[in-house]
Amino acid sequence: MNIEKLAPLAEKLFAEIRTLSCDGIGVTRDAYGSGESAAADYLRTFALGEGLCVCTDAAANLQFSLPGTASDAPAIWIGSHLDSVPQGGNFDGLAGIVAGLLCLIAQRQSAQHGSFPLKVVAFRGEESAWFGKAYLGSSAMLGKLSSQDLSRPHRASGEPLATCMHLAGADVDTLRTGRPLFDKAQMRAYLELHIEQGPVMTARGLPLCVVSGIRGNFRHNRVVCIGEAGHSGAIPRWLRHDTVFAVSDLIARLDVRWSALLEMGRDLVVTVGVISTDAAEHSISRIPGSVAFSFELRSNDRDTLDDFYQVFREECHAVSAARGVRFEFDDRVEAAPATMSREVRETLARACTQRAVPFDLIPSGAGHDAALFANAGIPCGMLFIRNEHGSHNPREAMALNDFMLGVRALADAASELARA
Amino acid sequence: MNIEKLAPLAEKLFAEIRTLSCDGIGVTRDAYGSGESAAADYLRTFALGEGLCVCTDAAANLQFSLPGTASDAPAIWIGSHLDSVPQGGNFDGLAGIVAGLLCLIAQRQSAQHGSFPLKVVAFRGEESAWFGKAYLGSSAMLGKLSSQDLSRPHRASGEPLATCMHLAGADVDTLRTGRPLFDKAQMRAYLELHIEQGPVMTARGLPLCVVSGIRGNFRHNRVVCIGEAGHSGAIPRWLRHDTVFAVSDLIARLDVRWSALLEMGRDLVVTVGVISTDAAEHSISRIPGSVAFSFELRSNDRDTLDDFYQVFREECHAVSAARGVRFEFDDRVEAAPATMSREVRETLARACTQRAVPFDLIPSGAGHDAALFANAGIPCGMLFIRNEHGSHNPREAMALNDFMLGVRALADAASELARA
Repeated sequence: MNIEKLAPLAEKLFAEIRTLSCDGIGVTRDAYGSGESAAADYLRTFALGEGLCVCTDAAANLQFSLPGTASDAPAIWIGSHLDSVPQGGNFDGLAGIVAGLLCLIAQRQSAQHGSFPLKVVAFRGEESAWFGKAYLGSSAMLGKLSSQDLSRPHRASGEPLATCMHLAGADVDTLRTGRPLFDKAQMRAYLELHIEQGPVMTARGLPLCVVSGIRGNFRHNRVVCIGEAGHSGAIPRWLRHDTVFAVSDLIARLDVRWSALLEMGRDLVVTVGVISTDAAEHSISRIPGSVAFSFELRSNDRDTLDDFYQVFREECHAVSAARGVRFEFDDRVEAAPATMSREVRETLARACTQRAVPFDLIPSGAGHDAALFANAGIPCGMLFIRNEHGSHNPREAMALNDFMLGVRALADAASELARA
Repeated sequence: MNIEKLAPLAEKLFAEIRTLSCDGIGVTRDAYGSGESAAADYLRTFALGEGLCVCTDAAANLQFSLPGTASDAPAIWIGSHLDSVPQGGNFDGLAGIVAGLLCLIAQRQSAQHGSFPLKVVAFRGEESAWFGKAYLGSSAMLGKLSSQDLSRPHRASGEPLATCMHLAGADVDTLRTGRPLFDKAQMRAYLELHIEQGPVMTARGLPLCVVSGIRGNFRHNRVVCIGEAGHSGAIPRWLRHDTVFAVSDLIARLDVRWSALLEMGRDLVVTVGVISTDAAEHSISRIPGSVAFSFELRSNDRDTLDDFYQVFREECHAVSAARGVRFEFDDRVEAAPATMSREVRETLARACTQRAVPFDLIPSGAGHDAALFANAGIPCGMLFIRNEHGSHNPREAMALNDFMLGVRALADAASELARA
C-alpha cells in the first residue's frame, strides 16, 4: 500500500492525543502518571480498533503487533516514549510511536501482510523530569531498574516510583528480580524515529537525518550549597558565606572551563536547569544560607564526561575554600553514550537516498531509549525529523509532510533489515 | 527605682512572647498577620496589667504611656518593631519594645512618677520580608504609605497590604489621606534600642554601642531574566539563551565591581537573597528559560547607592548583549540613609560613660524605623546591644545582663534629653 495515504490518520492521532494531554500551556504526560496513562489507554483502544494486537509488559510498556506474529520470531522493533516533560510538546516521543503504528497499519493493509515480523513499543517514563532518572520503561525492559531507582520520589507528589508504576499497571515484583522482560534474540534491530530537538536540520534544510550516535550524561538532581544565613545589612562582604554568590562564582568558572573544552573540539553541554534558594526561609534582606541546584553534563564521549565531572568537583572545592561554603551532592546518575549500528545507519541512509530525500548523518545531543538497546548489543538506528523551536516546550513544530517522509523511510528500512 | 530589678520581668516577657511566636524552628511574627497581632495582644494585656495606658493608632501601631501624660506635651519616644522575618529570632525588634516598657514601668514605680513625658511605640510591619517593603507601620505614622504600597501583595497569601492592615485593626481610609498620624512637635526625640545584627560588638567585647547612622537601601523584590527554554542535550552553547548562566555571570560581574568599591573605601553590601527558576516548567534536562531573583544594595551613602545601581543596570545590559537574554525589573523600592542626631548620640554616649559601660560609636548596617524619623527631622538615636550569630535567624543570642545595661542607659538618656 501507499503509506502516504495514512497522513490524515497521523494528523488525527496527534490532534486527539494533544487534546487529552493539554495542560493549558503545553502537553503534560507525566511518567507513570495520569497523563501518560491516558495516552496509553487512547492508543490501546485505537490499535485494537485497527485490528492490531496490544499487550503490556511488566513495566507497563505497550507492545503492538499484527495478529499471528510469532512471539519468538526475531522481529524488527520500532519504538519511542509516551511521556512528556511538564508543559512540553506533543511530538517528542509520540511521533516515534505513531510512526511505528503507521508502519504496522500499512503492513496490515498491504498485500504483504505480515511479510516480516514487526513490533512497536511505546515506552513509559523516558523523561528524567519526573523521577530524576531517564529511560525507566526501557531500563525495566532490559532488567536494569534497581531497587534504588524504584525508590526515587516523584518530583511533585514525592510518591516512590514503585508505587506509581504499580498504579499504572506494572508488576513491580517482577521488575525487582532484575530479569530482562524480553529475549534479546527476538530483537533483530531497534529503530526509533524522533523529532530533532536542536536547530540544525531547519537551518540546513534537511527534512530527515540519520543519527550517528547518542550523547550520554552525568547528572546530579540536587546539589546543595550550604553557607551561613544572616542579616543582609549587618554582615560585610569579607565575613559572608553567601551561597548565591558562591554558586554564581561556580557556574561562571564552569562556563570558562566549558568554553575552553569546546575550543579544543570536545563535545559537551553543561546545564543547570533548576536552581532555588529555600522558599521557607529566603528573604530579600537575608544572606542566603543555602541554594539547591541541578547539574547535568552531556557528551558523546565518556572521557569528556569523566574529565569535566572532575573539573566540576574541583571548582566546587575551590569555591568552598574561597567563600567558606560547602557542597552536598546526591547520587550521580549516569547514562552511557551510545553508537548507532553501522548496518542500521546505512540501511536508513539508503531508504532516504532511494526516495531522494535530502538528509545527513548527525549526532543526537539528547538521550533516547535507543541508547540503552545499543549499549545492550542490539543493532540500533534513529531517524530525526526536522522540527522548529526545539523540544521540551509547547512550541515544537514538525511538519506532517516531513513526518510522513520519515515514516516511509522507516518502513523501507525495517523491511530491508528484516530481509537482510 | 533601681531599673535592674526589672530583669526577671524582661526575661519573662521574652520567654512568653517567644513561646507564642514559635514556628517550630524560630519565631514568626508576620507583619500585619496573626503572629504579629498575637504579640501585640499579649503586650497590650501585659501593659494594662501594669497600669499603663495603651492606645492604637490608625496603622495599628501600639502606643504605651503613663496615665495622666498630656497627649500634646513634647515627649521622649522609645520604640521598635513587633514583627520578625519568617523563622527569625526573638530579640530583633522585640528587645526595643520591652526596653521601652521597662523604662515606663520603672518611671511608674519610682518616686519621680511621670517626671517627664515618655511614650513607647511598638511598630508593625518593619521587616520587608512580608510585603517587600520595610517600615510599614512607621511610614504610615509619618503619612508616607502610598496607595501603591497599600496594594503590595503578601509574600505567601498574595493578599494586598491594605486588607491585612484592615484585618489587624488599622484604619486604611485614614492612611490613604497621607496625613501624619502624630504631630512632630510632640516628639522631642526618638530612641531605639536594638540588638546588633552583625558580629562587631562580640568580636570587640562591647556590650553596648551608640549608632552613628543607618544604611539606606535600594531594592528590587523581583528581577526576571528571560532567555529561551530548550532541550539541554540538543542546543549547543553558542545557540543557548541560558538564564542561569546569564544571572550567574551577572552576579560574578557585580561581585568584582563590589570588591573594587570596597577597596576604594566605599560602604556597600550587595545581596541576592532570593533566586529561583520557574518551578512550573524547570527541569534538570531543560535549558532554563527564566530565572527570578531579588536584588538589594545597602550603603550609608546615597551616592554609593546611586553609583552601584547604575553599575547593576549596566552589567544587566552587558549580560543581555553577550548572552541574548533580557531583564525585567519591578519597581525599585528605596529607603534613604539616615544620620543620628549629634545631641542624642552624645547623650547616649554620656549615659554609657556615666555607668562605666564599654561602648563605641558604630554605624548600623541594617535599616531601622529610626531612619524614617531622622529623615523627617526628628532628633534620633539608637543603642545597639551585643548579640551573637546575627539576626533574622533563630540563633540570635543576647545576654540579659547586656540588655539591662542598655535599658539603664536608655532610661538615663531619655531623662537627660527631657530635661535638656
